[in-house]
Amino acid sequence: MPRTGAGGEPRRSEKWTARREAIVDISAQVFAQRGYHATGIVELCEVNGLGKGAFYHYIGSKEELLAAIHDRVMDEVLLGADRVAEADGSPSEQLEMLGNELLDVIHRYPDHVWVFLHEFPALTEERAEQFRVRRRDYERRVESVLRSGIKAGEFRKVDPRLTALAWLGMHNYTYLWLKVDGPLSARDVAKPFADIFIRGITK
Amino acid sequence: MPRTGAGGEPRRSEKWTARREAIVDISAQVFAQRGYHATGIVELCEVNGLGKGAFYHYIGSKEELLAAIHDRVMDEVLLGADRVAEADGSPSEQLEMLGNELLDVIHRYPDHVWVFLHEFPALTEERAEQFRVRRRDYERRVESVLRSGIKAGEFRKVDPRLTALAWLGMHNYTYLWLKVDGPLSARDVAKPFADIFIRGITK
Repeated sequence: MPRTGAGGEPRRSEKWTARREAIVDISAQVFAQRGYHATGIVELCEVNGLGKGAFYHYIGSKEELLAAIHDRVMDEVLLGADRVAEADGSPSEQLEMLGNELLDVIHRYPDHVWVFLHEFPALTEERAEQFRVRRRDYERRVESVLRSGIKAGEFRKVDPRLTALAWLGMHNYTYLWLKVDGPLSARDVAKPFADIFIRGITK
Repeated sequence: MPRTGAGGEPRRSEKWTARREAIVDISAQVFAQRGYHATGIVELCEVNGLGKGAFYHYIGSKEELLAAIHDRVMDEVLLGADRVAEADGSPSEQLEMLGNELLDVIHRYPDHVWVFLHEFPALTEERAEQFRVRRRDYERRVESVLRSGIKAGEFRKVDPRLTALAWLGMHNYTYLWLKVDGPLSARDVAKPFADIFIRGITK
């Protein structure tokens, strides 16, 4: 899955793509610090060292930039979920791996995740719809592992939807304190979290 | 604890306090929808049906308004924690009660909680410090229940800080989907969450 996301942009050169990605990353920092609505195109051009024309050459609009930040997170999160599905462990093992993968993304992309979790209501129309579909896709993967565990008699009969939301909350909320330069790695957190959660739903 | 919070404002009439609270509530909605930085005083005066002079009569500044929204949430959350401490149950019972109280606040104050969780970095100096102290106070109450449970041999030897963060994440994150007019009450969620979490840390 290309990092420019599922936005259906025309194919561009590697150089264009690399520059665009750098703009997405720098802009994620700015949105995280100042908020999406409060950041204007002039400011975005300034922090990226671009004129308006060049900015629009890489990014069609401020909202497209926001969508690209969401895609960066969702691409990584869904790739992680793919790896877990391919690894083919027991439901408990899969849930632990999903936690590792998710915390790894949150740990590596703190600004993107901050923007993702705070500014998603600013996406409109197809972009909002596409984001909802991808987020729902991920949530369904978590629910599906829970359902498999219940079916296999490994987990008790919890509500898969509510339990997935509990699991997501526990993991997603780490964005507030799990920092790249902090004392804890993603694994340091994923293991005790998995211990709590899996014991909590095991028969 | 008066709802005007611990901001040390001078004593005012009941009418003044009621009007101020109404302004805090309406402004929380606006901040939740449009973001704190993107909302100006002119807009706040408009939605509250106030002239600038009247606005400043009730609220000293935009940041004071933000602090008042934070105080509204923290007042309720800490009152809930006081009730739990007074009820004096076992650590498991106390943790379940804390979950009930917290989800009840999130359920009743969706806009305030949205602003609280997203805009706290906009608080500066003493207001930021006061908020940090009160939030840390609440976190310590959760950690303290965990420590009591470990000491009593009811809970296994989890890391109280990391476990409190897991618990907070699971509960706080409901602000994204636990809605006043939604199909689930705070209790509908608190019970299965307590079941997962307490089983997860029980010896």
